[in-house]
Amino acid sequence: MAQLTNNIYIILDLIGTFAFAISGAVAARQRGLDVFGIFALAFTTACGGGIIRDLCIGAIPPVGLTHFPYLLTALIAAIVSMVFYSWVNILTHPVLVFDAVGLSVFAIAGARKVLAFGFNYEVAILLGITTAVGGGVLRDVLLGRVPIILKREIYASAAMVGAGIVVLGTHLGYDIDIISIVALIFCFGMRFMSLHYHWNLPTFGTNKK
Amino acid sequence: MAQLTNNIYIILDLIGTFAFAISGAVAARQRGLDVFGIFALAFTTACGGGIIRDLCIGAIPPVGLTHFPYLLTALIAAIVSMVFYSWVNILTHPVLVFDAVGLSVFAIAGARKVLAFGFNYEVAILLGITTAVGGGVLRDVLLGRVPIILKREIYASAAMVGAGIVVLGTHLGYDIDIISIVALIFCFGMRFMSLHYHWNLPTFGTNKK
Amino acid sequence: MAQLTNNIYIILDLIGTFAFAISGAVAARQRGLDVFGIFALAFTTACGGGIIRDLCIGAIPPVGLTHFPYLLTALIAAIVSMVFYSWVNILTHPVLVFDAVGLSVFAIAGARKVLAFGFNYEVAILLGITTAVGGGVLRDVLLGRVPIILKREIYASAAMVGAGIVVLGTHLGYDIDIISIVALIFCFGMRFMSLHYHWNLPTFGTNKK
Repeated sequence: MAQLTNNIYIILDLIGTFAFAISGAVAARQRGLDVFGIFALAFTTACGGGIIRDLCIGAIPPVGLTHFPYLLTALIAAIVSMVFYSWVNILTHPVLVFDAVGLSVFAIAGARKVLAFGFNYEVAILLGITTAVGGGVLRDVLLGRVPIILKREIYASAAMVGAGIVVLGTHLGYDIDIISIVALIFCFGMRFMSLHYHWNLPTFGTNKK
Repeated sequence: MAQLTNNIYIILDLIGTFAFAISGAVAARQRGLDVFGIFALAFTTACGGGIIRDLCIGAIPPVGLTHFPYLLTALIAAIVSMVFYSWVNILTHPVLVFDAVGLSVFAIAGARKVLAFGFNYEVAILLGITTAVGGGVLRDVLLGRVPIILKREIYASAAMVGAGIVVLGTHLGYDIDIISIVALIFCFGMRFMSLHYHWNLPTFGTNKK
Repeated sequence: MAQLTNNIYIILDLIGTFAFAISGAVAARQRGLDVFGIFALAFTTACGGGIIRDLCIGAIPPVGLTHFPYLLTALIAAIVSMVFYSWVNILTHPVLVFDAVGLSVFAIAGARKVLAFGFNYEVAILLGITTAVGGGVLRDVLLGRVPIILKREIYASAAMVGAGIVVLGTHLGYDIDIISIVALIFCFGMRFMSLHYHWNLPTFGTNKK
């Protein structure tokens, strides 16, 4: 059972990595980057959040740099986005759903890793969010635009809820695997609903640029 | 006496954190970021410099991520800048003075922390400056603009003077607490005077963009 | 002989540092940064890649912050670019050649350092590239533009080839110093030829911005 859960996580983790890498590669292609740039953005978007988290908790070297399946997944995503670019627009909706999977898995796995390293709840929540959204922030900074997750949509806040449930459940003494499933469902559900119903966090309209 | 000095530092540190967070939140609001984005910018501006310093000296996890008063201060600053936005323009001058307090305290505390970890003078000065200005640089990069501290005003150079005095005083064997007060006065005074008299570092005008 | 090789490396390393610092200082000046900003960009461009590498492998504090010759070289480059700016355009070609030296030395030295720390081949290649191009990426991000190395020219890919040769040679059991010379020649040659013949990696034209 633990083995099965573990395998499911590995698959969800790679699905999320793939979706993040696709978003990086497509954005890079749209800005006219070259082949290397497209691959670099795919990898950075997929692994950047986890790398920042690992630097902050002293997990040296960061798993994003050592674990070959991540690099391979980013490479495949970059190639897919170059060769089958005409499909990408057709596949926008599936990719957004995969991206929501990635957001959820990364937020929960990030918070769990921080707790496993023995750090406090605040670190777990902040770095759970960072794991989930850091790659997308780096992607946007490298492409010279304000990170989209700071501007609209329930995105980082869904990651915060996911990481928060992991922390709360751990504090209350529940089994971490069960808590993680609950957190995954809430985080994914919140993100999926916000996509479906176009929910956004409030902004302050008159000051918009 | 040591206790009193210590308490004054804690208060100055929180004043600086608050001022930096306000500057992040206000800039985020002006760019139309959502509620989460405003909070994220407030926190990043306030804690980003110290987090970079801690990563560079191996202080894991960075204090900005573990110490709840910083997170709370950033949260309050974000709420203040959202709810009492009309006050912000009126309060520009006090906020600039608080910001100068933050600059000074962060530069001196940053340099002291590096020396306490046993690293050399160069690291202390470079990371003293980084502690003081790193958050503002991250704020501007996330908002897609060239960091303002690189473009005009005596700002990072005041931090450099503050960190430099700490290093020089330590090298000469003076008491670190007394040296810190001298460094604080010089750094704050330099920044305050540059605000008051509109001092700027030279640029090379014909090449300006 | 080992001593001679070592001395040549130190000289090549400083030549590369100087060329990178010049590119940072000139770009900063063209964007109208002040004196401090020009120096900050010179230093960041020269040392940024190595600092990111050192953070990722736990070499604390990063050598870019502790080793005074780097700081001094960046300072001299900043002064040169301010005082002798009219020469810079005349010297574009030599600077590009020096920059290619820097790219090669940084990529090979970066990969070697990672291997010396006992990390795997993937980390050595990824951080070899990062050492070589990280400073230039930070320079462009700080100046609010999409990193030029992601957009055109054989640049990061030459670094990848250099780091890859180091890894391959190590895997095959060749002497690391001989392998490094081969890697230097290939990396520099590839970059130099791409400059000379205006080689570029392919982009996807219709989506260019």
